Amino acid sequence: MKDIVKNKLSEYVAIIESALKKYSLKGKLGLQATVADAMDYSLEAGGKRIRPVLVMEFCRLCGGDVNNAAAPAAALEMIHTFSLIHDDLPCMDDDDMRRGKPSCHKKFGEACAVLAGDALAIRPFQIIAEDDALDSDTKVKLIAELSCSSGAEGMIGGQVIDMENEDRDNVDEENLREMYALKTGRLIKTACLMGCIAAKADEKKTKIAEEYAHCLGLAFQIIDDILDVTADEQKLGKPTGSDAQENKTTFVTLFGIDGARKEARELTEKALDILDSFEDSGFLKGLTEYLLVRDY
Amino acid sequence: MKDIVKNKLSEYVAIIESALKKYSLKGKLGLQATVADAMDYSLEAGGKRIRPVLVMEFCRLCGGDVNNAAAPAAALEMIHTFSLIHDDLPCMDDDDMRRGKPSCHKKFGEACAVLAGDALAIRPFQIIAEDDALDSDTKVKLIAELSCSSGAEGMIGGQVIDMENEDRDNVDEENLREMYALKTGRLIKTACLMGCIAAKADEKKTKIAEEYAHCLGLAFQIIDDILDVTADEQKLGKPTGSDAQENKTTFVTLFGIDGARKEARELTEKALDILDSFEDSGFLKGLTEYLLVRDY
Repeated sequence: MKDIVKNKLSEYVAIIESALKKYSLKGKLGLQATVADAMDYSLEAGGKRIRPVLVMEFCRLCGGDVNNAAAPAAALEMIHTFSLIHDDLPCMDDDDMRRGKPSCHKKFGEACAVLAGDALAIRPFQIIAEDDALDSDTKVKLIAELSCSSGAEGMIGGQVIDMENEDRDNVDEENLREMYALKTGRLIKTACLMGCIAAKADEKKTKIAEEYAHCLGLAFQIIDDILDVTADEQKLGKPTGSDAQENKTTFVTLFGIDGARKEARELTEKALDILDSFEDSGFLKGLTEYLLVRDY
Repeated sequence: MKDIVKNKLSEYVAIIESALKKYSLKGKLGLQATVADAMDYSLEAGGKRIRPVLVMEFCRLCGGDVNNAAAPAAALEMIHTFSLIHDDLPCMDDDDMRRGKPSCHKKFGEACAVLAGDALAIRPFQIIAEDDALDSDTKVKLIAELSCSSGAEGMIGGQVIDMENEDRDNVDEENLREMYALKTGRLIKTACLMGCIAAKADEKKTKIAEEYAHCLGLAFQIIDDILDVTADEQKLGKPTGSDAQENKTTFVTLFGIDGARKEARELTEKALDILDSFEDSGFLKGLTEYLLVRDY
């Protein structure tokens, strides 16, 4: 990663970490304090913070004050974290490890993980609603976008398809693309759109953000599929080969590693072209390129 | 129940059922359609619809247009239903029956029940944000109230205490009151407050609503504890005696059935007195009295 990208990324990540700390419930709850520990445990497990970074960067690219994007960015990261906690549950993917640490239910027990996930699904709406920097119209737009994209029509819908695909013999390309568009793509699109909303961007800029997000979201997922086959387990923070083990249809099983790499490269190039529409998009171009060559 | 109370209640319930139908995702989803079935299954299981009725009635008592309260009322009922679905899960209370029907995970499987609950925890915020009748300031206040009361600081917090009490040897009265205040009381308070917010009620009326809600919420829970010992299983729609079987501390174990009945009666009388502050509170008085003598 180029230094200029790395530095800007660290700057954003610092704002996000500080926002997540501000919204932490640790020390603020009574008898139910454990749930705050479980929420923070999963939020602090790290991850790349790609979604909240996109919120902040699109806010900046559209001429908004980046400080206005801190609450929406933290809110989105909470939704993402809630989905990971519930995804890892024994009745779902049954994953013991996440980002190199025991998953939430392994650490806190299943019931606590269900409730910590629930709390992280609801708190984002409170954070946006109670934010001091945003006006009511903007809050309502942010909440409408976040709730629609993370619910049954969006991310949760994608998880439902993913879960039901386990019992399907033939998962075709159309199904796979739809599943990924909802499960991963939708929140990445929402990240870009929430940045636009926080900046009160016009329709034209919002449309461009959406097109960029479409390419990035799909490329991101294809790389994930490739990493499940090729990555170093240590770096990835979870076992590799799980897709193959579960006989999952992925971009790799459909098109092979080379075919999948080719599509990810083409989508990334298209995404980079779209970013030409924005002035000063050097950082985001660097980040987009980095996501293509990432190894975790 | 007096006819006048029964008729008004039916009128409200009809508005609520119609709102829930309007917000149903059945026929509106693609490959993930099952989750809409699971959501509707639990929403349609009935129940008393007390919380949404309180939203609508407090909106009316505070001089608001009842139609403005339909979306917030439906939203609150979804949050309540989400909590029941997750509460019934094997890793939580492990209940096979709910309202006389198989619980959501028994009918649709555990993974689908987790996801249907998740979707019902998120959709309420979308419904309020996208409502046509409410202005943005009102929506933001409703969302702040609903998210705060249902999250880790409220209802979910109460579920955490309840769950952890299973491993505690001595659950004292203070713990029990705090757990009930969060797990049941908080959403009942929110129901009354959301009605006030939808009607843009002044501080004085809001304060009275809150005092009423405190008494009602506690009385409601005490009756629940009594019914777990005394009710007809058929009418209750779930097995009775589960508290005793699990060695749970309840108002009945702390004060005996007579002591519990006495406290519920006193709280109900206090609630009725508080309602004197509102003109035209006949219906709500009747409903409050009915909740004391209900047998399910």
